Amino acid sequence: MTVSPLARPFPDIAAISGVRIGTATAGYKAWTRNDVTLFAFDPGTSVAGVLTRSRCPSPEVELCRTRLANGTARAVVINAGNSNAFTGLTGRQAAAAQTAHAAALLGCDVGAVFAASTGVIGVPLPQDKAVAGVEAAFAALGSASWHDAANAIGTTDTFAKGAIVTAMIGATRVTLAGVIKGSGMIAPDMATMLGFIVTDAKVAPTFLQAALSAANARSFSCITVDGDTSTSDTVLAFATGAAGNAELTDARSAGADAFAAALADVCGQLARLVVRDGEGASKFIAIAVDGAEDDRAARVIALSIANSPLVKTAIAGGDANWGRVVMAVGKAGEAADRDRLAIRFGNTEVAANGMVVPGYDEAPVAAHLAGQDIEIGVDIGLGQGRARVWTCDLTHGYISINADYRS
Amino acid sequence: MTVSPLARPFPDIAAISGVRIGTATAGYKAWTRNDVTLFAFDPGTSVAGVLTRSRCPSPEVELCRTRLANGTARAVVINAGNSNAFTGLTGRQAAAAQTAHAAALLGCDVGAVFAASTGVIGVPLPQDKAVAGVEAAFAALGSASWHDAANAIGTTDTFAKGAIVTAMIGATRVTLAGVIKGSGMIAPDMATMLGFIVTDAKVAPTFLQAALSAANARSFSCITVDGDTSTSDTVLAFATGAAGNAELTDARSAGADAFAAALADVCGQLARLVVRDGEGASKFIAIAVDGAEDDRAARVIALSIANSPLVKTAIAGGDANWGRVVMAVGKAGEAADRDRLAIRFGNTEVAANGMVVPGYDEAPVAAHLAGQDIEIGVDIGLGQGRARVWTCDLTHGYISINADYRS
Repeated sequence: MTVSPLARPFPDIAAISGVRIGTATAGYKAWTRNDVTLFAFDPGTSVAGVLTRSRCPSPEVELCRTRLANGTARAVVINAGNSNAFTGLTGRQAAAAQTAHAAALLGCDVGAVFAASTGVIGVPLPQDKAVAGVEAAFAALGSASWHDAANAIGTTDTFAKGAIVTAMIGATRVTLAGVIKGSGMIAPDMATMLGFIVTDAKVAPTFLQAALSAANARSFSCITVDGDTSTSDTVLAFATGAAGNAELTDARSAGADAFAAALADVCGQLARLVVRDGEGASKFIAIAVDGAEDDRAARVIALSIANSPLVKTAIAGGDANWGRVVMAVGKAGEAADRDRLAIRFGNTEVAANGMVVPGYDEAPVAAHLAGQDIEIGVDIGLGQGRARVWTCDLTHGYISINADYRS
Repeated sequence: MTVSPLARPFPDIAAISGVRIGTATAGYKAWTRNDVTLFAFDPGTSVAGVLTRSRCPSPEVELCRTRLANGTARAVVINAGNSNAFTGLTGRQAAAAQTAHAAALLGCDVGAVFAASTGVIGVPLPQDKAVAGVEAAFAALGSASWHDAANAIGTTDTFAKGAIVTAMIGATRVTLAGVIKGSGMIAPDMATMLGFIVTDAKVAPTFLQAALSAANARSFSCITVDGDTSTSDTVLAFATGAAGNAELTDARSAGADAFAAALADVCGQLARLVVRDGEGASKFIAIAVDGAEDDRAARVIALSIANSPLVKTAIAGGDANWGRVVMAVGKAGEAADRDRLAIRFGNTEVAANGMVVPGYDEAPVAAHLAGQDIEIGVDIGLGQGRARVWTCDLTHGYISINADYRS
């Protein structure tokens, strides 16, 4: 697999207090790579999560949804190569057995063990391999790095994706680190991916959930590769509390703003890394919509542009075809007035007041589109609504990857 | 341009009483082909139409919307190579001038002259060429065949598309013929295309509109190539009345059922021809959804499948990846119960009750997917709602055509 031309190096992530990582080979496919990952947390770790809105979710998603209500976590196990989705009772039993085995090994309640699986849909997770795999990962706890985990949770990913930030809560420095996988079947609500964020901050589950949900709305729910949404989308955040700060219980706690901003930063970084590994991507596209009726309308319009195959292929071809942006604004169904619309590529305004700008010079636009980082700006001209979303271009690479993935 | 492997031969369409056709070269692009088409109707012709729901429509669409209220038509002029969309006042003036010139030549009110343009967005229709072009087409009235018209209205189309049916209204045989263009930027409400249907039946405008709207709901609004919707979608139906039947004034008129069924037949044939010319298409895909909560939900689910890049690339690769169908059902947002879902490819059931069928044999499915005409059937298992939609696969050809179209 060729590494995406938009790849970013994996950051330097040191150990986070309160979590140990182990990886192992369960052998879900005919390969020798690590494909099962276990994060084990110290007692007292709180948890929050955002999960796919698919009406046909995997058993792992259902299991997470149920167990999130407890608010505490001791482990999460991640399987790569088999999504276990649409596998009926057999698949449900495998997920239950794997998490029960992890709980037995860790000596904790099974309700504190989370799970996520990614890969082909429709093949039940083989229970024997899943149980043996998590046992091997348990035996390896403490030996795997964050980089190892990022590699072990990937499937069609072409590079390991991680992010790390720090924040000050009072006089205590806390760290937030995360890894994520995803490159296709990526669309909002939320993006199709598995993401895991761990902080050593002490955060009550309810506030962790509120901060994660808010961060999600401006990160994972604002990216799209192909408009498709998986049955397995999962982002979980864990707070071990090992840093020793005074617990953040709600938005009024001292340092809560700093923590929420740091969490949003990590989520935004991880989300954009997923776009940078979009299947076949050759260009990263940031879409800014301003002047819509309200923020919701701006997001609908921005996603209409971001999901348009015609816009995405035009960018792939380096073609300043702003007419296709007009088309995408028009089809979004939100309030728009053709004669107030303005469009820019990079810093160059190409259209305003319902037509091409007088004396339009395509040269600076062509130069911008020849680069790897593309900006499309649209001003609807009606109100104050704004949105920012991120996508990639649509290339022959996407077709090659997806027309022959399962075989 | 390579002809689509899914092409169908142009049918034998004889002259329809009450309409004359002329084609000419306006020279909207650097080519020598015919690119302006004029249909001239005898006095007493009624008209109905369905138009794009884009919030940024072309001036031709606005002009049609206004003039449809009159209910009568004497002509429609169609320009190919320039959509005149998003061209401000200059574009509006060009459309007004071209139709006014046609009205002067025909000696009729300008409100009875319709227009449609297709091609690049954002370049004003050159008024001098548009006026000279329609004058040349007027001079050629009566010399062009339906096949000539189908060729002259095309842009990226790879084959001429037409359909003809007849119906009995009492003892009078009436004929309905149509031509259509469209191959990309094709998505419902309604499909991105220009379509023109003429019948010699005598039909009151209100009933013609009702019958066309009903036919549209099950034809042009049920096809998708890429989920994109143009600024110029237009389907117009004209009834010259030359056949001499007793006028159809409403659904209770004798023969109204037969006429409506024939109109729906023509619309369905034309709509499916557009899919058969889908950009880069190598396979025609019919999607049948049954058992949804209601027909509306069934259509949303069917279009979610039809618009999924992952489903479309799987079909392109001949891959029986029914997990992607599950994904598309799940993301549609309509009521679905994973454990009641059943999926078939062709006549072979592959999944039922939330998992693969026992003893599933991929051989007959692989054989079906190796063909050109693919059927995907989904039973939601909840209610009586049903829908049928049509699409094509997503191939390297789509990328090649669209990554370098405008240049």
